[in-house]
Parts: sequence; C-alpha cells; structure tokens
Amino acid sequence: MGIVLGPNRYGKAETRVVRVTRSGAPGARDARHRIKDVNVSVSLSGAMDDAHLTGDNAAVLPTDSQKNTVFAFAKKHGIETIEDFGLLLARHFVDSQPTITHARVEIHEYSWDRITGGHSFVRNGGEVRTALIHSDGDGGAESVVSGLEDLVVLNSTGSEFHGFVQDEYTTLAPIGDRILATAVTARWRHRSAGTGDWDDSHRAARHHLLHAFAETHSLSLQQTLFQMGRRVLAERDELCEIRLSMPNKHHFLVDLEPFGMDNDNEVYFAADRPYGLIEGTVLTDDAPHAASAWE
Amino acid sequence: MGIVLGPNRYGKAETRVVRVTRSGAPGARDARHRIKDVNVSVSLSGAMDDAHLTGDNAAVLPTDSQKNTVFAFAKKHGIETIEDFGLLLARHFVDSQPTITHARVEIHEYSWDRITGGHSFVRNGGEVRTALIHSDGDGGAESVVSGLEDLVVLNSTGSEFHGFVQDEYTTLAPIGDRILATAVTARWRHRSAGTGDWDDSHRAARHHLLHAFAETHSLSLQQTLFQMGRRVLAERDELCEIRLSMPNKHHFLVDLEPFGMDNDNEVYFAADRPYGLIEGTVLTDDAPHAASAWE
Amino acid sequence: MGIVLGPNRYGKAETRVVRVTRSGAPGARDARHRIKDVNVSVSLSGAMDDAHLTGDNAAVLPTDSQKNTVFAFAKKHGIETIEDFGLLLARHFVDSQPTITHARVEIHEYSWDRITGGHSFVRNGGEVRTALIHSDGDGGAESVVSGLEDLVVLNSTGSEFHGFVQDEYTTLAPIGDRILATAVTARWRHRSAGTGDWDDSHRAARHHLLHAFAETHSLSLQQTLFQMGRRVLAERDELCEIRLSMPNKHHFLVDLEPFGMDNDNEVYFAADRPYGLIEGTVLTDDAPHAASAWE
Amino acid sequence: MGIVLGPNRYGKAETRVVRVTRSGAPGARDARHRIKDVNVSVSLSGAMDDAHLTGDNAAVLPTDSQKNTVFAFAKKHGIETIEDFGLLLARHFVDSQPTITHARVEIHEYSWDRITGGHSFVRNGGEVRTALIHSDGDGGAESVVSGLEDLVVLNSTGSEFHGFVQDEYTTLAPIGDRILATAVTARWRHRSAGTGDWDDSHRAARHHLLHAFAETHSLSLQQTLFQMGRRVLAERDELCEIRLSMPNKHHFLVDLEPFGMDNDNEVYFAADRPYGLIEGTVLTDDAPHAASAWE
Repeated sequence: MGIVLGPNRYGKAETRVVRVTRSGAPGARDARHRIKDVNVSVSLSGAMDDAHLTGDNAAVLPTDSQKNTVFAFAKKHGIETIEDFGLLLARHFVDSQPTITHARVEIHEYSWDRITGGHSFVRNGGEVRTALIHSDGDGGAESVVSGLEDLVVLNSTGSEFHGFVQDEYTTLAPIGDRILATAVTARWRHRSAGTGDWDDSHRAARHHLLHAFAETHSLSLQQTLFQMGRRVLAERDELCEIRLSMPNKHHFLVDLEPFGMDNDNEVYFAADRPYGLIEGTVLTDDAPHAASAWE
Repeated sequence: MGIVLGPNRYGKAETRVVRVTRSGAPGARDARHRIKDVNVSVSLSGAMDDAHLTGDNAAVLPTDSQKNTVFAFAKKHGIETIEDFGLLLARHFVDSQPTITHARVEIHEYSWDRITGGHSFVRNGGEVRTALIHSDGDGGAESVVSGLEDLVVLNSTGSEFHGFVQDEYTTLAPIGDRILATAVTARWRHRSAGTGDWDDSHRAARHHLLHAFAETHSLSLQQTLFQMGRRVLAERDELCEIRLSMPNKHHFLVDLEPFGMDNDNEVYFAADRPYGLIEGTVLTDDAPHAASAWE
Repeated sequence: MGIVLGPNRYGKAETRVVRVTRSGAPGARDARHRIKDVNVSVSLSGAMDDAHLTGDNAAVLPTDSQKNTVFAFAKKHGIETIEDFGLLLARHFVDSQPTITHARVEIHEYSWDRITGGHSFVRNGGEVRTALIHSDGDGGAESVVSGLEDLVVLNSTGSEFHGFVQDEYTTLAPIGDRILATAVTARWRHRSAGTGDWDDSHRAARHHLLHAFAETHSLSLQQTLFQMGRRVLAERDELCEIRLSMPNKHHFLVDLEPFGMDNDNEVYFAADRPYGLIEGTVLTDDAPHAASAWE
Repeated sequence: MGIVLGPNRYGKAETRVVRVTRSGAPGARDARHRIKDVNVSVSLSGAMDDAHLTGDNAAVLPTDSQKNTVFAFAKKHGIETIEDFGLLLARHFVDSQPTITHARVEIHEYSWDRITGGHSFVRNGGEVRTALIHSDGDGGAESVVSGLEDLVVLNSTGSEFHGFVQDEYTTLAPIGDRILATAVTARWRHRSAGTGDWDDSHRAARHHLLHAFAETHSLSLQQTLFQMGRRVLAERDELCEIRLSMPNKHHFLVDLEPFGMDNDNEVYFAADRPYGLIEGTVLTDDAPHAASAWE
C-alpha cells in the first residue's frame, strides 16, 4: 500500500483592498471619488507534487506574490466589477505561470453609500456581494458564479407549516400563521464567463430574490426557496443555476397565558440555535454540468 | 482584615424580542405590519447581601422572571421607542420590588426596511441603535443615554496627519492626504429622562454625526471626533453630553514601486490590527454631573 | 426551457446537547459524573420534490422532530463517541422514514477536564473534535469521517522558504529560518463505518498530526501538510484518506533597525489577514472513491 | 452655554507581538525556545486639547510610535510577565513624553504548551490571561490589575436555586439539582504595583477560583461568585479586590415525557441567549479606594 498526494490547492486568502477612483484636484472639497472595497482570496493548483513531497518550491508562486498581484492589478485595471476583476486575476495566474493550470478567485464586496459631497461614505449594511471564478486560463474552461451573503429577510405573516410527517418524536403543532425569517446565502451560475453586465445582473437577481421571498405565500421554507430560485432563473436568461442556503431563523411565539395575556402573533422570541437549515439547487433543464464551479 | 461584598448587580442579558404590530386581517395579503426587533439586557441591584453571603434568595427576583417581564411588557405596552420601553421596564423593577433599589436596562435595536407589501422586511445593515437607562424608580434619579454602534464611515480624502511628536521610536511620515475611516460608537446623554421625541432626537443626532464627519477637513481623528460631538450638542438642546469611541481603521497606501507603478492614493490595504483607538467626551458646560449614567 | 429542482437537503442544525452520566447519589458530593458536550447538525434528503414545488409537506419530517430525536437518543443510548452517536442517528432517520433516503449527521464535540471531585469541569481549549457521518440506511452505503478543528500549532524555528518562482510581482525574500504557525483543520476517512475504537483512533490521529508537525523540518507548509497526512495514514490502518486545511498564520519579523536594534528572530508581528491557505488531500493508493463522504 | 472637551484618551490597540527567547544554535533541532504571545493595547492621556480643538498635533505621540515602542521594548527587555511589561511601557510613555500625564496598558496573553522538542508548541485553549496597568509615571500613582477571561467551568450537580421572589411574572420552578455553568471573567487588584511574583500570583488566583467553584455547594450563582472572590483574597495577601463577571450559561433539562422517557438530570439543552449575568466585587475591608484602576 502506498500513500499518495491527492487534490490540493494553495493561495493567498483575504487580501483586503480598497480602490479609490478619483476625479477633481487631490484633497479638494469638490473631489468626486468612487470606492470599491473588496476581499480577494486566490487559490492556485497545478504541478505541486514536489512542493508537497520534497519541499522543492520551484513550481510555487508565493502567496505573497499573489497578494502583490491583487494590489498591482487593482491599480492597473481598476476594479469595475468583482466578476471582471476575478476573471482577470484567474486568467493571469494560469496564463503567466507554466506550473499553474487552474485558478480559483473568490471576491467579497462590501457596499458603501455616499453621505454628502464627493468623498464621504457610510457602510451599507451587513450584506456582502460575492463572486467565485474558476479558470483554466485563456481558451480553457471557465465559470463565473455570482452571489450574495447575509441578506436577512422576514415575513411577519403569510407563512404556514402543516401536513408534515408525525413520527414518535414529533411534538410540533401545525401552524397557520408564523414569522418566516432567514439569512439568505445565494449563488448563481452564469451560462458564460464572457463579458456580461455583471452589475445589472446582480441587481436584478437580488431584486427577484427579495420580491419572490416577499410575494410567496409560504407553506414551507423549501417552497419559498424554490420560488426564489425559480424567479431568478425565469427572469434572467444569462443564468442557468442557483444554489440557496437558508437557515430558518426561528421566531417562537411567547406563551403569555401565565400572565393572563393572549399573544395574537405579536410577541416573539428570536432564537439563535438550533435552527432549521434548508439548502437547495434550482436549475434550467439545459444547464451544462459544472460541479466544480461551486467549489 | 475582613473580606466584604462590594458593588454588585445581576439580571437577564440579551433577551431577543420581536414585536409585531398588525393591522388588517390576520395572514391577509394586505396586512400592514410594523416590527420592532430588540435585544434587552436588564441589571438589577439592591439588598443582595444574603444572596451572596448565605445563598438565601429571598430578595432575588429571578432573571427568568425579568425575561418574562420583558415579553409581557412588549405585549402590554408595545415597543414604541427603546428609550420609552427601557424606562418602563427599569421603573417597573424598582417600583414593584422592595428589594430592588436600582435598575439598569440596555436595549439594542436592529433596523429593518420594507421590501414590498405590508409584512415583508429586509435587515438594514450592521448599524445598531442603542439605549441605556438607569432608574432609581418613580421620583428617584434617572438617566437616558441614547446611541448607536457600528456606524462605519470613510473619507477618501480631506484628511491629513502631521506636526506630531517625533521620539526615538517614531518612523511615521507626515501625510497630507489619507483615507480616514472609523466605526463609530456614539452615546449621548439626554438632559432629562422625561418624555421626549426619542425617534426624532436619534435621527437628528445620527444625521449630525454623519455630516460633521463628512464636512470636517481633518488634521487628526481627535479633531474629527470633537467636531462630531460638538455638532450634535450645538444642534440638539435636549442633549448635554456625548461620548465617542472611534477606532482608526487604517488604510495603508500600497507600495507599487517594485512593479513600476506609482500609487497616487488609489490602492489601499485595509488593515485589521493593530488600530488606533480614539475615545473622547464632549459636553456642554452646564451638563449636570452623571458618571453613573454611562456604566 | 424548463426550470427544475436540483439537489437539496434540509435539517436541524446545531442542536446543543450536554449529556451527563451519573454515578453515586444525586447531588451527593461524591457523585462521579461523565459529561459529553456536543453540537449536532442533521441534514436529510429524499422525496422532497413536493415540499419545494407545491408546499405539500407530507414527506417532510420536521426539523423540530429531528431535534427531539437527538435529545431522546442522547437519553436512550447515551453518547459514547460522536461517531457512534452520529451513525445511530443517521441510520434511524433513513430506516424509520420512507421518504428519507439519505442522512448526513455532523457532530462537534467540546472537551472538558476535571477540576477536582467528581462533577466539576473546566473547558479544555478551543480545539473541537468532529465527526461527519453519511448513511443510506441499514445495508446501504455509509461513511465516517472523523477530525478536528482549531488545533493551533507553531514552530519557532525549523522552517525555511526559498527556491520559489520569481515573477514580476514577487518581492518576497528567501528565508532560512522563520516561524511556522497554523490552525489545523483535519478530517480523516475511515475505511469502514463498522464498529471501531473511535476514541483510540482519534487520539492516535491527533498525536501523529502534532508530532509530524513538530518533527518535520519544513521547506514549505505544503511539505509539512503532506508529512502530517502521510504520518497519520502510515500509522493507522483503519484510515484511508485525510484532508487538511492549514492557514499560514504569518508571523512577520519586525524591522527594528530604525531603533538601532537587530532582530535575530526574536520579535514578530502576528498578522491576521491576508494569510496563506494550504489545502491538500493525502490518501492510500487503495482508498475507495468516496467524494460524497466529505460534503 | 459653551461646548467643551471632556475626558479623552487615545492609543494603539491590539498590537500582536510574539516574542521568542532562544537558546541553542539558530535553526538547530536541539534549540530550546520560550515564546510569549501577547496582544498589547496602549491608551495615553494628557495635554490633548489642541489636537481636539484645532487639529494641532504638537502634543500627540502617534499611535504608530506606540506600536513601534511595544515591538522595541519586547526586544530590549523581553516579556517576562505581562504585568512587568505593561508597567515598563506605561512608565515609559509618561516619563519620556512631557505631554503625556497618564498611561493605560492592557495586555492579553495566549498560552501555549510544548508538543515535543524545544521549539514546537500547541495553543492551550481559549482562556486568556490579562493585565491592566495604569501609571502616572515614575513616583506617581500606579495600579496593577491581573486577571483572566473565558475560564469556562461547569458543575454537573451540587447546585440548587429556590426561595426566590415570586412576582406576577415568575413562572420558574424551584430546583434542587441543576447544572451550573459559567464563563468566568475575573480581574484582581494588587495592593502594590511594586515588584511581585506575578506568575505565582496568577497561578494561585486561578487555582483558587477553580477550586472554590468546584467546592462550593451552590444555592445561587451569586453565592458561588462571592465564594470564589473570597477564597482568592483569603489566600493571597498581595491582593485586595477582585471583580467577577459570570454569565449563567443556562442548561435546560429537556422534557422527554412526550417520548415516554424520564430525564433524571441526564440530557440538557445548552442555551445561548438570553443568559443570566451576575457581576460582583469582593474586597478586603482595608482595600485602598481605586476606582480608576478598573477602567
């Protein structure tokens, strides 16, 4: 029996870059700036056997160099969208390094609103925009998965749950009106890694997720999940698959009877743990197979 | 030498309540709801020597009962503002319990926006609204401190730092144009715990903090802090003191020279640790002394 | 073009159970107890199309019932090892529910040391023991992956890094002596889900990981990773594959020259972000293929 | 009415230093090292009015210089104990800077165990050792508060809670046997900031906290808290005051009756929120007053 090296990858994770695009005189009160605030994680794979087996690093582009590349590319190319920036970086690593055959670039973007004037900003919430890029380099296989994390939503009515299995450990009562709340993590795969209007696509996908959540009268969180995924794919031809992970953030109706009060769906305890976790994929029936796009 | 019990307090921390106020038929698509999403922490003090010294709990209102009270009061009185709700709770504990002489209630509020329709909401960011109430009960001393946490702001220009002390460990170069970023924690004390328009007061204080941050050409984060505090007090007569804690979230200009590029304030590394931490108090010269209001 | 439901699963995540096994009279000072402190996450899959497509829950065992089952099984069967407990739960869900065809159970265990006497304990660190169980039910495919998280280790010498690729963005200098530190996440797959001495296997695997880390003179973190994986497999016949994820927790030598001091590998800055991230698989050449065991 | 600057302070927070003390040849397999892993936060105050009011920084020692000083002192003086290192730093800032009249230094220390050999270490848990130093400089007022955070302890029996107040919101049943668990934050004040055997003092205080927790048959967490504080002061003459903050980490007995099982204190749900929070001070009756030592 031998012991061998299996799949592996390495890279620089969480390089935090803020890119400022300026107009107007430096420091001037009328300067008008744009900022992009991103967190870039690179993972490379290729001919890395020697690095693992003997410690010979001749094939290893240091993670420090990857970090430098992120900064240099932010200067050279700007960061228009995280999808474009990720593709640029991923292709660069594969195309410029003989020993690198595959690159994975994951980028998180934090959003800012303007306060007033041209260079003052306030962070807009906890929600994060994401992109996950895979590339085998110029002419090779590529994939672009866009998404978001921590989109926290709540319906204070319009949600039921009943008709479920009753086994010997079931004590849950059927309920005709409950709070439905979740923190959506959604990722959607583009049909093509070619040039797209990534911003418009993201804005639309987010809009449809929110509205499908709000407009679905829910018989289960699974149903809501499917409707959210379905809506995005039905409305956006450039997308072929969406994966959703939705914790059921339980809000329990507090029993106020001991205090002589009824509780007509007014007072809830927001619980932390445990929580339901609903995960599902929705796809078009012509979606090309691409398991590795999500890893 | 004897060993004695000193100051002490106890209570239920972090009771998470969501209060729904409904109009329209239950479950109806046209139901119009309001939600308040809060985290309530109660701390009581009084005649607690026996509980500590002998384990006699005759003076102890259980923290479980405090939690129940929070839920019952949410039902009975609603949660109009966290200041009013905190005062109601604090006075209740002192006035109803002979052994309790002082109550501290701290409430954090999470904010939600409407998606569409009357009962669908999306969490609005990471910022938290806060209230800290102290009460010795009806007719006794009381204080109300309102505030916010995690208001993350950034100026991409209009900030300098120079003219500082040079000691033997100083290597920092003076700088004429830098990013200034911070996550503001601000708390402001009201002159009176009497009825106020707490919502209007909070909205205004937040507005002035944001605008003073944006409009101050900064020679130091200390100067910006003072201008923010001063602006709030100058504009709001109902407030007499404000305390600000502002981490200097350093954004370091990346050295791109090794790659043959200049970096004209365009590409920054957003660092996590260490960070500067600037803390300061601004007050009106007629502010009544109230150290305990902040504890 | 149609839109269809793809892979999906649902369950109750993070049920926190503490199981006490008692001997001696209840409450007696001489009572001798054992405690198991675990966090159980269940994910089920099967005939869930209707739940997603129409909201018909006839096939859905509520996540609340799953939680109840965890508690009831903790009582009925005790929690001897997390591997056995996970197998028991996973098989139960598939075998007892016609609509459930696959169960995934992930358990985290927190470790406690005795203080003194028989029923007083102190939490032993941040490290977590893990188990990931997949089961298609009695007679079906099953897998057991054991592991650990947050095993934080550091070598203060015996680590070099040089001979790497030099591209146009490389500024890193070769180094002959550096700190090597990482927070190990390791998971290892058992050849069989049959009865094993899971405790002994875990203790040994952890031991070999630690010792291989300590005893490897490292030319790269990749090399260290491979040696750690290799050692575990070489020493433990019951295991056939191990996956390691090891962030390179950079410790940068501080430049003290401006203060007239040298720094002979004595003073380091421990950085948070960015960090290198090295991920790799080591396996025996006869390991049966089992990609789904890790998901 | 004027608006004025009140109390303020500024400094560099969370400088993460790892200090290696070496013996043996560099890189040698027989090298025997010691490591100290600390997180240092400095806060200075003094003549800072101009910095706030006009942005004149002539009195400001940059936080960057403070960070440099931490690193340089780690080299020059080593880090024997965090108490000594904190005193050294605090005195330095006040004594060397005419504009600084007071320094506060807070240090957290992370603990490591040896794996094997002389330079391999594994992080020992989540518990943190702390020191908080205040100094007005050489010959001025000084204080040393030592402590620990996240010492998580649990008694699986020997804890009761009954005889408490019953008000209209009380539903809690008296209980004669429960789990008592808490994550101790403890800080204790030394009578003198003069040279002490800080390591021995810390080891002893921690020991007495643990043993008093284990050996107290508890009628309330308040009683346990007092016994823990009392024990430390009774056993350690060099200490005069201790402050404890102890969240009551509730473990709720799960109701298994619906499943036809009793639950004789065997299966508990470990809840996150809300939690009781018990805070108290224990002091000797001759302890000098020193409120500012804790801030």
